[in-house]
Amino acid sequence: MVSTEKPKYRVVGTRPVRPDGTDKVTGRAQYGADLRLPGMLYARVKRSPHAHALIKHIDTSKALALPGVRAVITNKDFPVAEDKIADLGEGAANIKWLLDNVMASDRVLYKGHAVAAVAANDLHTAEDALALIEVEYEPLPAVLNVRDAMLDSSPRLHDNLRTEELTGLFTPPLGAGDKVSNVAKHLLLTKGDLEAGFAAADIVLEREFETTMAHQGYIEPHNATAFWNKDGELTVWTSTQGSFAVRDQVSMLLQLPVSKVKVVPMEIGGGFGGKIPVYLDPPAAVLSRVTGQPVKMWMTREEVFEGTGPTSGTASRVKIGVKRDGTITAMEAHYAYEAGAYPGSPMAAGVMCATAPYDVENVLVEGWDVVVNKPKVAAYRAPGAYQAEFAVESVLDELAQQLEMDAVDFRLKNAAKEGTRRVDGAVFGPVGNIQVLEAIKNSPHYKSELSGEHRGRGVAIGFWFNVGFESSAYASVNPDGRISLVIGSADIGGTRATIAMQLAETLGIPYEDVHPQVVDTDSIGFTGVTGGSRTAFAGGWAAYECAMDIRRQMVARAAQIWETDADKVAYDADGVIRGPEGKQFTFKELAAQLPHTGGQIQGRADVSPMTAGPAFAGHIADVEVDPDTGKVTVLRYTAIQDVGTAVHPSYVEGQIQGGAAQGIGMALSEEYFYDGNGVMRNASLLDYRIPTTLDLPMIETILVEVPNPGHPYGVRGVGEVPIVPPQATISNAIADAIGVRPRNLPATPRVLLEELLPPEKP
Amino acid sequence: MVSTEKPKYRVVGTRPVRPDGTDKVTGRAQYGADLRLPGMLYARVKRSPHAHALIKHIDTSKALALPGVRAVITNKDFPVAEDKIADLGEGAANIKWLLDNVMASDRVLYKGHAVAAVAANDLHTAEDALALIEVEYEPLPAVLNVRDAMLDSSPRLHDNLRTEELTGLFTPPLGAGDKVSNVAKHLLLTKGDLEAGFAAADIVLEREFETTMAHQGYIEPHNATAFWNKDGELTVWTSTQGSFAVRDQVSMLLQLPVSKVKVVPMEIGGGFGGKIPVYLDPPAAVLSRVTGQPVKMWMTREEVFEGTGPTSGTASRVKIGVKRDGTITAMEAHYAYEAGAYPGSPMAAGVMCATAPYDVENVLVEGWDVVVNKPKVAAYRAPGAYQAEFAVESVLDELAQQLEMDAVDFRLKNAAKEGTRRVDGAVFGPVGNIQVLEAIKNSPHYKSELSGEHRGRGVAIGFWFNVGFESSAYASVNPDGRISLVIGSADIGGTRATIAMQLAETLGIPYEDVHPQVVDTDSIGFTGVTGGSRTAFAGGWAAYECAMDIRRQMVARAAQIWETDADKVAYDADGVIRGPEGKQFTFKELAAQLPHTGGQIQGRADVSPMTAGPAFAGHIADVEVDPDTGKVTVLRYTAIQDVGTAVHPSYVEGQIQGGAAQGIGMALSEEYFYDGNGVMRNASLLDYRIPTTLDLPMIETILVEVPNPGHPYGVRGVGEVPIVPPQATISNAIADAIGVRPRNLPATPRVLLEELLPPEKP
Repeated sequence: MVSTEKPKYRVVGTRPVRPDGTDKVTGRAQYGADLRLPGMLYARVKRSPHAHALIKHIDTSKALALPGVRAVITNKDFPVAEDKIADLGEGAANIKWLLDNVMASDRVLYKGHAVAAVAANDLHTAEDALALIEVEYEPLPAVLNVRDAMLDSSPRLHDNLRTEELTGLFTPPLGAGDKVSNVAKHLLLTKGDLEAGFAAADIVLEREFETTMAHQGYIEPHNATAFWNKDGELTVWTSTQGSFAVRDQVSMLLQLPVSKVKVVPMEIGGGFGGKIPVYLDPPAAVLSRVTGQPVKMWMTREEVFEGTGPTSGTASRVKIGVKRDGTITAMEAHYAYEAGAYPGSPMAAGVMCATAPYDVENVLVEGWDVVVNKPKVAAYRAPGAYQAEFAVESVLDELAQQLEMDAVDFRLKNAAKEGTRRVDGAVFGPVGNIQVLEAIKNSPHYKSELSGEHRGRGVAIGFWFNVGFESSAYASVNPDGRISLVIGSADIGGTRATIAMQLAETLGIPYEDVHPQVVDTDSIGFTGVTGGSRTAFAGGWAAYECAMDIRRQMVARAAQIWETDADKVAYDADGVIRGPEGKQFTFKELAAQLPHTGGQIQGRADVSPMTAGPAFAGHIADVEVDPDTGKVTVLRYTAIQDVGTAVHPSYVEGQIQGGAAQGIGMALSEEYFYDGNGVMRNASLLDYRIPTTLDLPMIETILVEVPNPGHPYGVRGVGEVPIVPPQATISNAIADAIGVRPRNLPATPRVLLEELLPPEKP
Repeated sequence: MVSTEKPKYRVVGTRPVRPDGTDKVTGRAQYGADLRLPGMLYARVKRSPHAHALIKHIDTSKALALPGVRAVITNKDFPVAEDKIADLGEGAANIKWLLDNVMASDRVLYKGHAVAAVAANDLHTAEDALALIEVEYEPLPAVLNVRDAMLDSSPRLHDNLRTEELTGLFTPPLGAGDKVSNVAKHLLLTKGDLEAGFAAADIVLEREFETTMAHQGYIEPHNATAFWNKDGELTVWTSTQGSFAVRDQVSMLLQLPVSKVKVVPMEIGGGFGGKIPVYLDPPAAVLSRVTGQPVKMWMTREEVFEGTGPTSGTASRVKIGVKRDGTITAMEAHYAYEAGAYPGSPMAAGVMCATAPYDVENVLVEGWDVVVNKPKVAAYRAPGAYQAEFAVESVLDELAQQLEMDAVDFRLKNAAKEGTRRVDGAVFGPVGNIQVLEAIKNSPHYKSELSGEHRGRGVAIGFWFNVGFESSAYASVNPDGRISLVIGSADIGGTRATIAMQLAETLGIPYEDVHPQVVDTDSIGFTGVTGGSRTAFAGGWAAYECAMDIRRQMVARAAQIWETDADKVAYDADGVIRGPEGKQFTFKELAAQLPHTGGQIQGRADVSPMTAGPAFAGHIADVEVDPDTGKVTVLRYTAIQDVGTAVHPSYVEGQIQGGAAQGIGMALSEEYFYDGNGVMRNASLLDYRIPTTLDLPMIETILVEVPNPGHPYGVRGVGEVPIVPPQATISNAIADAIGVRPRNLPATPRVLLEELLPPEKP
C-alpha cells in the first residue's frame, strides 16, 4: 500500500470480519428468491419475440380463463398508461419511457420487451398462461447499431424523439432540435483552440473504435414481491441497489405518494448499476392490487440478458496531436453510445471522462445518445467511462510507441493534477493521478522483465468522478456499550462493515462494538443508491455525523452526572469522556450509566454532500496470444488505484479485482451477440463468456492513498474506476504482443484469428 | 366526556382509524404463529405432572434416539444452570429463579412446570418424543394457599428462601430474616397513630377476604421462534409486550451481551402483563444453538393456564374506623399474596394502592409475598391493586350502609386529592379522584332508579399509580410531507395510533400524514414494555420530543433557504414555518424542498420520565341475582375514569371496557380451580369462565379529563385502573341485592347458592 501523509486511525484501515459474512456463507441470508408469504401468487412476464414491432392488439381472455390464473395485466393497467399520461405534465415523457420499458404500450422496441404479466396460484400455471396471451404484432425493421441508427434513412424508434442539446452531466438540456431522430441527446464540450493545437503538433493520429453491449453479469437474477394492502399501502421486497430509488420509481409509475410505498431491500447478489432501474416491481404491485394477494416474480437468466439493462455499445473516433517531446497539444474525441430502446445512455459521463486524466490546453469532446432496437441500457460501474477511455488510451499508446517514449512517462508528462481544469469546466482538487502513475513505474510488475514470443505488456489509466448524494444513519447506544446502527444502503461490497467502521472510529470504540443493520424505507431516512462509488463515502459520512450527535449527548450526560458544564467535558479520540479533576468515563462505562441517568442515547444524521473525491486508476497487463487459436491469456495483471483512504483494504482490493475482471471480460470475451433480426444469440451464462477464476490470474492490487480533503476520513469511493483501464490495458498489451491493435472489442479469438493475426505463411 | 380546562388540540382527542386495523381484520398481520423460516424445527416442552417433587434424574436418551428428534435440553443446558450460577455473583438468586421457572433444575414446584424441551423436524415427532423423556420424581407435599404456606409447619418450597423486609415498590429491601420461610417478602407501611384513630371512631369494622388466582386470558398463546447464527448472534421472534424486556431476560439467561440478542416483536394477541416474562424464548434459543437451525415453539391453552403467570390469589383482613359524620379515622389492611412457585407477587403495589384513594390520618398497611405450589404469578393489569382495593371498598360499602350515607358521598368526604400524602409517603399532584366521584353522582346511571327483587347496585373506586420509564422514537420526513415514525412499543391497544397522533399534533400536521411502524430491538433505541399504562404516556412523550427535534431542524432549514437567522423563523402550531417579511412554508412545502437544500430531516428522542400521572376510576354496577341458580346477571355497568387527556377516546373507552370486563370476570366466574393434589381442574377456555359478550351488558364509559401537568399533552395512561373497581363494585351490588356480602371471590353460582343465599323456606 502506498500512503501519503495518512492520518493514524484506530479502526479505519483495518480488516475486520464482515457482519453479514456468516449468514451469507451458511445460506441463512435472505435473498428475494427466499421470500415466501402466506397466500403468495407467482407471476411471469410475456415478452416480445420481435426486435421492433407495433402492438396491434393483446387478447388476454384465454389466459384469464385458464384455471389457476388470477390476473393478467398490460401497460393499460398502469395509472400512467398512454391514455392518462398527458395529465402528468412536465416529466411525462420520462415517465412514459420508464413505464413503456417496464411494459410496452403501442410498440415493442427490443426482443424480450415485456408486453404483459400473468399471476397465478403457482408458477407452472403462470408459465402455461403466457402462451395463451395473444399478441398481434406488425413487425418493423430493426435498427441494431448506432451507425445505422444515426442515418437519416434509418427507421425511427420513437415518433416524437428529438435531439436534446446537453452541456453536461447534471445540467438541464439547452433544448431540442426540430427533426424526429434516433439521437436523443448531443453533447459538445470544448476548451482552447483545437485547430491551433493540432497545428502545433509533430504527430497527429486519428483512429476509430467500437465496443459492444455487455452485461453486468450479477449472479442473482432480478426479483420482486409486492403486496398492496387494503389500506392502499404497498410493500415491495426486492433485490436492489437502492430501496429508495425503487420507492421513487414505483410511486411514480403507480401514482402513489412515496410514503405509501415501503421497499424492503433483501440481500443482493450483485448489481454493478444494473439493479437501479425497476422491471418486476411495478407489475408485481399492479398484480397484487388486482388480486389482493402478495405476488412474487423473478427472471430467468435469458430474461436478465434480454430484458434488463446492459451497458452501451459504442462507436468512436479519437484524434490526438503531440509534440516530439511528448507534450499533447490537442485532443478530439467523438462518441456515439447505444441507449437501447429508450434514451439514457451514459454518453455524457463517458464524454466527460474521455480526456479527464490529461492536462491539455486544446480539447474537443462530443457525444450522441442513440436509441437502437436493443434493451435500454442501465448503469454499469463507472458507466460510459471505459468505452470513452479505451479509445483515448489506445491512441495514446500508439503515440507513445511512435514517440519511442515509455508509456507511463508519456502520461506523466501530460497528467492532470490538482488545479487542472477539465473540458467540462471542473477544476481538480487534490487527486492521485500523478501518484498512481508513479506507483505504476515503481511497481514490481512494471519493473519486471517480460520475454517470450507473442507476449506483450500494456498499461492504461482511467478516471471516474465518484459522487456524493444523500445518506442517512441512525444509531442507538446499548447499555452494554455496543451500538445498533441502522442504515439504508444496500450492502453489495461490504458497506455494512465500512460504514460501521467509520462510526466506530468517530466514537473511539472497537469495530466489533457496532452492529449495523440495513432496513426498509419506512425505518430510516432517505439514502441514495449503492452506486457511484458513494456508499462508503456518503454512508460513512452519515455515520460520522451520527456519531458526532451521540458524542455531543454523551458529553452532556457526563456533565450532568458530574454536575459540571458540558464545555468542561471532552470526548477524546480514544472514546474516553473526560471531565474536570481527572473524572472520566470509558464509552462502555458511560453507556452502562445511561439507563439510570435520564435514558439511553441515539444519534441520527442525514448528509447530502455535493462533491466527492475523484478517482484515478492505472493498470498493467501482461498477455500472451496463441496464434493458432486466437486465445489471449492474461499472464499477470496489476491494478493500481488512488483509493483516498482505504477504509477496509480487503474490500477495496476486492472492488478493484472485481472491476478489473469485468473490464478484462469486456476486453476479451463479453458481448451481446445479435443476429440480423435483433435476436441475442448468446443469452445464457454458458454462451455469454464472463471470465471465471480459471480465465484470470490473481489480480494484484496496489492501493495509493491520497486522502480526499472533502471527507472526514479522506474517503473517495473505490468501486467504479477499476473497470475503466482494463479494456485499453489489455488492448495495448495485445498490440505489444502481436504488433496489431484491436480497435473493436471484445478481442475474441475469432477477432484475433480472422482480423488481427497476420495470415499464416504458407 | 367530562373535561376540565382542556386545551384545544387538532389531532389529540380525535378518533382516527388505526394503522394496523386493515391488516388485522384481513388476516394479513403477522403473529408469531404465522412465522415460517427455512429449515425451521418445531419444539415442545415436557412438563411436570406433580405440584411439588424433587427431580431425581432425567433420561433423554430414548427421546434423542427417536428418528426426527434433533435435540433435547434440560436446565443443565443453560449457561446459568445450577452448577454455574455461583459465578454470577449479585443477583444470582433472581437469575436462578428466572431460569428455574423457565426450566426446572432440582425440583418442580407446580403442575405444568417445564422440565425439558425437545426439538424435532416436525411437530408430531416433537410431541411423540415428550413421552420418551424419562423423569424420575420424588413427590413432596404441595402447599396450595397462602394461609397454609405461612404456617411454621408448612413444607418449604425453597431451601434458602428467607423473608425480605421491604419499604416500598422501588426501594431496595432492608434485609432478610434468619428462618427459611415460604414468605419471600414482608412490607409494612404506617402513618399517624392507628390506635388513636380507632379510638376516635364511632364504628369499627373488621372483615376478612379471599380471592383466587385468575389468568389474563389473552387469546393468543405464547410463542417464540429463535435462531442463533454461527456468529453467535441470536434473533428471537416472539409475542411480547416488551421486545427489550425479552432481550434483557434472554441475554441474562444465555449470558449474552444485550446487543447480541435481537428481538423481533410480532403482532400480539393480548398480554395484560402476562407477556412480559419469558417462557419459550430461552429454550427455543438453546435448541437453536444446539441444532444450528431456527426453532419454533408455541403453547397449548392448557400450557398457558398451567405454565404461565396468572395473578395472585390473596387472603386479607381489613379494619376501618369511622365517625358518625362519615369521617374515616383509621384504616388497617393486611394482605397475603400468592407469588406462585417463585417470589414476586404484586403484593407491594397492592398494599400501596389499598388505601390510596382516601385522605386518612392513621393508616397501617401490611403485606406478605408468599410462595405456593402453583405457577409463578405475572403482572396482570394494575397488578395487586384490585385484590387490595376489593377488600377496602367492601368494608367501606358496609360502613356506608351502617352510617346510612350515600356510598359516593361517604367516599367524597374522605377522598384523596391534590396534596394528600399517601401511606407510602408520596404526595398527590393534580388528580381526578374528586372529579370521578362527582361524575359518578352526576351520571345517568347513578341517578337512575333500580327496582325489582334480588336486584342491587354497587359502586366502588380504584387507584393506580401509572408509570413512566423509557421510550424512544425516530422519525424521518419524506419529500411528500408524510412522516415515517419508528417506535419500539408493542401495540396492544392502539398505541401506533396514539403515539403517531402526538407526533402529528406536535408537528401541526394531520394524523394521516404519520406512518408509524413497530420495529425490532436492533432498529430503535430502548423502549420499555407496553404495560404500566405507560405507552401512550411515555411513547407519546418520545414522539413529542422527536417532533421537536424535527421542528428545530425545519426551522434551521427554512432560515437557510431564506438566508436569515433561525431565531427569526417560527414553527407555528398549525405546522406552518414562518419567517420575516411574510415568508412561509407549510410543512409539506418545506418537506418537498429538503432533498434539494441539504438533505432530508430526521428526528430522534429518548425520554425517561420518572413520574407519571396517577389514575382514579369509579364504577357503578346494577346486578340481579337468580336465587334458584345462583347466577348473577350484570344489568348495567358504568365505568368512570380520570383519563388525563384522552388521546384517542375510542381506544380509551376500549381499554376501560376491557378492564371492567376482566374485573367482572374475576368477581363472578374466573378462578384457578385446584384439586387437593395441586392440579388445576379447569385449564381450558371452556371450563375457565371468561365473560363473553353474552355475559355482559354494554359497558358504559364516562371519560373525565384532568390533564396530567407532567406530560406535554396531559396524558396519564388509562389501561390499568379500570380493572381495579369491578370486584368491589359487583360484590357491593350483590350485597345490595341479597343482603349478604361475598367476601371470597369469584362469587360463582356455587358460592351464591351454597354459601350466601338464605336457605329456601320449606
